[in-house]
Amino acid sequence: MWKAKVFTLYPELFPGPLGSGLYKKALEKKLWSLEVVNIRDYALDKHKTVDDTPFGGGSGMLMRADIIANSLDNNINSKNETTIYLSPKGKKFDQSSAKKMLEKNINIICGHFEGVDQRLLETRNIEEVSVGDFVLSGGEIGALLIIDTVVRLIPGVVGNFESLTEESFEKNLLEYPQYTKPQKWEKKDVPDVLLTGDHAKIKGWRLHQSEDITRRRRPDLWEKYKKNK
Amino acid sequence: MWKAKVFTLYPELFPGPLGSGLYKKALEKKLWSLEVVNIRDYALDKHKTVDDTPFGGGSGMLMRADIIANSLDNNINSKNETTIYLSPKGKKFDQSSAKKMLEKNINIICGHFEGVDQRLLETRNIEEVSVGDFVLSGGEIGALLIIDTVVRLIPGVVGNFESLTEESFEKNLLEYPQYTKPQKWEKKDVPDVLLTGDHAKIKGWRLHQSEDITRRRRPDLWEKYKKNK
Repeated sequence: MWKAKVFTLYPELFPGPLGSGLYKKALEKKLWSLEVVNIRDYALDKHKTVDDTPFGGGSGMLMRADIIANSLDNNINSKNETTIYLSPKGKKFDQSSAKKMLEKNINIICGHFEGVDQRLLETRNIEEVSVGDFVLSGGEIGALLIIDTVVRLIPGVVGNFESLTEESFEKNLLEYPQYTKPQKWEKKDVPDVLLTGDHAKIKGWRLHQSEDITRRRRPDLWEKYKKNK
Repeated sequence: MWKAKVFTLYPELFPGPLGSGLYKKALEKKLWSLEVVNIRDYALDKHKTVDDTPFGGGSGMLMRADIIANSLDNNINSKNETTIYLSPKGKKFDQSSAKKMLEKNINIICGHFEGVDQRLLETRNIEEVSVGDFVLSGGEIGALLIIDTVVRLIPGVVGNFESLTEESFEKNLLEYPQYTKPQKWEKKDVPDVLLTGDHAKIKGWRLHQSEDITRRRRPDLWEKYKKNK
């Protein structure tokens, strides 16, 4: 069973979106598990302080290395786990990272304020991971995002279907447009080809649409696609 | 006041992380507002069906254009709002998108299943936005992510500090390492320069660190930085 452990100052935010619908059922079926550690429980003073000002000056507060390390050391038992810290300066998270994360249990440290003391990252074999080039108020939403993406890949969680979106990502293509009922809506029909029942023709049309949208919207993916085609 | 409106099949997931800490206070101070629309309330049959199978075959279900359009048409009053649909084939969301989104109120449609009928996107002036190259089970976590990033930029929400992380992103640099108390921890000292009190020297050291980490970890940002330097 794949296990995720989240280290956070806001334990009440979990499972949040991960505790509803199919993911809740999968939790109950023990297809995966979620444990939440409140970093504040590992503070060393009676005020439960977790942060302090940065050396060298600067705005904001930093999370202390000793407190977070204390929470990790008391809750991580196996070396065969991946521990990540969510930070804009980390390695970009993508679908292939998600696949890789499924191979080991994962510990996710959610930062707050201006970040964490660098010595935590140097002493605890922590991978810095970024979910994108933007600044969040804390790591919690990034943790939800990563766990959502990984859990979706666990067999049995989202049913047996092969996801088209995922398939296209693997080929470096964006997904083709899709249509459902009603067949005619606001004077717009679904493309004729989709009604022919001719599977080869439909497949060809969809590939052409995927290529077209990828070339227009994502030249970076398009270059990769052409190389691997 | 900046307003966010979320269209979702899971209204109970909001405000979630956006309703805690400083964001909750900011909601109470009316620095921003969050409204949630349950798409299912706009279904047309007594079973409240929102999805159907794709024309042309394929796995999974699609959200129907007519139902979502019905929810939008009944809840969006102003043309001076941005309406986005979260999808892996959208324009990549980043810190500059967040700044831009702050200029208008925003409506976010959270997809589920295999996506939405293409005709919705064509008829309702909807921007497709992607939070990254990965596949989530639905749009809700992406909506939380975008709103978090935008609300953080509203003056008064996170205090008056200038965020260092944000500053570095604007210059296409990653953030330099930071240190807080204790000064010595597990035999590791903070770098001497940070204790000198020499602001110019500290600034120079930090810039050098930022440049170094950006060059090593993110050649793409490094190229942009060099061009604009």
